Amino acid sequence: MKRLVGTQEIIVKQLVEERLTNQVNQKTVDTAVAEIIANVRKKGDDALFAYSQQFDKMTLTSLEIGQEQIAKAFDEIDSTVLLALKNAKINIETYHRQQLETGFEDKPSEGVIRGQLVRPLSRVGVYVPGGTAAYPSSVLMNVLPAKIAGVKEVIMITPPQEHFNPAILVAASLSGVDKIFQIGGAQGIAALAYGTQTIPKVDKITGPGNIYVATAKKQVFGLVGIDMIAGPSEIGIIADDSANARFVAADLLSQAEHDVLARTILVTNSKRLADEVEKELAYQLERLPRKDIAQKALNNHGCIIIAETVEEMFALMNEVAPEHLEVALDEPYAYLDLIENAGSIFLGHYTSEPIGDYYAGTNHILPTSGTARFYSALGVHDFVKRMQYIQYNKPAVAKASTDIMTLAYAEGLSAHARAIEIRQEGEKS
Amino acid sequence: MKRLVGTQEIIVKQLVEERLTNQVNQKTVDTAVAEIIANVRKKGDDALFAYSQQFDKMTLTSLEIGQEQIAKAFDEIDSTVLLALKNAKINIETYHRQQLETGFEDKPSEGVIRGQLVRPLSRVGVYVPGGTAAYPSSVLMNVLPAKIAGVKEVIMITPPQEHFNPAILVAASLSGVDKIFQIGGAQGIAALAYGTQTIPKVDKITGPGNIYVATAKKQVFGLVGIDMIAGPSEIGIIADDSANARFVAADLLSQAEHDVLARTILVTNSKRLADEVEKELAYQLERLPRKDIAQKALNNHGCIIIAETVEEMFALMNEVAPEHLEVALDEPYAYLDLIENAGSIFLGHYTSEPIGDYYAGTNHILPTSGTARFYSALGVHDFVKRMQYIQYNKPAVAKASTDIMTLAYAEGLSAHARAIEIRQEGEKS
Repeated sequence: MKRLVGTQEIIVKQLVEERLTNQVNQKTVDTAVAEIIANVRKKGDDALFAYSQQFDKMTLTSLEIGQEQIAKAFDEIDSTVLLALKNAKINIETYHRQQLETGFEDKPSEGVIRGQLVRPLSRVGVYVPGGTAAYPSSVLMNVLPAKIAGVKEVIMITPPQEHFNPAILVAASLSGVDKIFQIGGAQGIAALAYGTQTIPKVDKITGPGNIYVATAKKQVFGLVGIDMIAGPSEIGIIADDSANARFVAADLLSQAEHDVLARTILVTNSKRLADEVEKELAYQLERLPRKDIAQKALNNHGCIIIAETVEEMFALMNEVAPEHLEVALDEPYAYLDLIENAGSIFLGHYTSEPIGDYYAGTNHILPTSGTARFYSALGVHDFVKRMQYIQYNKPAVAKASTDIMTLAYAEGLSAHARAIEIRQEGEKS
Repeated sequence: MKRLVGTQEIIVKQLVEERLTNQVNQKTVDTAVAEIIANVRKKGDDALFAYSQQFDKMTLTSLEIGQEQIAKAFDEIDSTVLLALKNAKINIETYHRQQLETGFEDKPSEGVIRGQLVRPLSRVGVYVPGGTAAYPSSVLMNVLPAKIAGVKEVIMITPPQEHFNPAILVAASLSGVDKIFQIGGAQGIAALAYGTQTIPKVDKITGPGNIYVATAKKQVFGLVGIDMIAGPSEIGIIADDSANARFVAADLLSQAEHDVLARTILVTNSKRLADEVEKELAYQLERLPRKDIAQKALNNHGCIIIAETVEEMFALMNEVAPEHLEVALDEPYAYLDLIENAGSIFLGHYTSEPIGDYYAGTNHILPTSGTARFYSALGVHDFVKRMQYIQYNKPAVAKASTDIMTLAYAEGLSAHARAIEIRQEGEKS
């Protein structure tokens, strides 16, 4: 891994610039995706069958994955995987139930009621990538919060496969998916946004995907809600001399194996640790099945930064706003107050990121590319909407009328003022 | 207003299609905006001065609006307007404070801590349109929730003017804006997203604007957060025979006067009411200063729908998902349960929409164009992020290790499994 040196300002600038310059060829993708969306909107299912042929080399006869295929997946799945999925599900549910919101109501003055209702979205679409990036854990992470929020219908789409990974279909069933369709890419997103003869139009689309999927989500954003634009996965580790170099190296590698674009950042105030982590990386890397991917990720998007103080380590990481943040310090809990921006935080030498990826119950769909500055992990809050309501009786409107009419006239909106005034003139119509 | 007839399905289809076909010339705007953004990113303040010259015909010598200009605004403002703004501010604060969230923490098993922190965003940008669409009430609605959330720095931008509306600067000051810059359009949004020599880069941008502003927000979305893509303003009114035709007409007009694209939809099960509302519209329209705008809006985007039952009226409005929904029925509170999708709800014959626009304390920045299906009114929740954290001690990791490693191997991610396994092998590094 390269070492970054210089002032904090220079380092942060380098890290941010690197993220921004990642966005090559976006224009070509934009055009291709816009065409796919327009075509699906126009031709519906026919376009979906044609794109499955063209992009996935699959001649489909139907789009929906039926109950018999799901039953078959339960027969095929390894029993230890099934048990692990069930245990993970319990943890995800107990964590996410704590996110449930209730509305409120107040009566601030005589004749006035104000409130906020919290209601689940009606129908949500979840994208699940195919191929090597088909993660059953992601199915749980997307679907369970929606179901806990009370979403009535969760539609899952996933690219067509000769043989589906049984764990994907089992995870969908365990988490309560209502319908599954085999359709991927931008065409799948278009189908969810506009609806086709077979696939119902949804209110919001969540779930990660490749650049075509991400671009399609961005393009239909506004017509439907989306979760976020997911970039390459990232880990930031803050470690001091108390950290174990083998653990730190293993955690950096667990991020690096995802993808050649995955980003790994170690900030430490211990030169000894930095040196040992580098040795450990070299040693552990040799033994990894996904060595080639991890090596490229480390070389191109990995870095070690030597800081002076603990405060400086946190200040730097707050600028980076990493998707995952490990705090490899003794007594890590005490440092929570110093953390401003991170998607998910892993405290202490034993809390390795994969615990959160799979098991602890926190969500693993997280803000990437610095968006932790303003975005949160996927959660129950993403599947509800808040509706305001007010009720004023006649005397309450009368009492407020001068102020309201003053503001309306000040903004040049006489009809707004009139709507209040007319209610002071008696009820005869 | 035209009357829509047919089955509910046909009516909803017509209403939705009308919204979708509104999006003309978007491609030309996209290209122009992309160029402006690239230019601001490259040239910073210089580009801002050049665009102010080009688009606003203003030769600026500085971008920031200073304290002396704000003090002058307080001298100039009408005292009744100042009082009304102060009263509105109090109501907005008492309503929005109820939206404040706290985090949570649980200890689901021995050696495991899980939690969620709720933290304010660090820096937010608020766009305030210029000219006739300069609304001091919108300044309060954007800024106060951010300040209640705890945002440290709120930056306001607004197009340059020969003479600023004092109410805008006063509202900014009352609501606690930290800095104001005179820059509008896509160039202003670009400055907030990328930062310039003078204007600091923000984490999120909120506030309504014209098509250039909306497009720029969409284009920088991902790099920064945005509130929503605002479309034309909308009112839906559900009214039965108990409704007062004069009130209903006045409220439809208060929406129609906004903009020739404003949409007004009345659903009623009373033919008598429909007829009387039409007569009242004609009568009241003649007396409005913004008659021409309102007339065009009613003709092009207004409609009356006759329904059979109360349930049918609500079902139809739920499909429309209007920005504002008035329930002009006796005992309206009882119908809250029937409402699935609406930005803000106004209950009863006296609760005219302008009460919420200006005064009651609910927010008037609302989801338009059917996005109330998945979006909410702007609120404190838009200015916070939720960060997850977990801490597992050594025995807790050991206990969970089999399940975690099983899932990691099932997903083909060996380094994930290794990061857990290595922690079972002893601490020697």
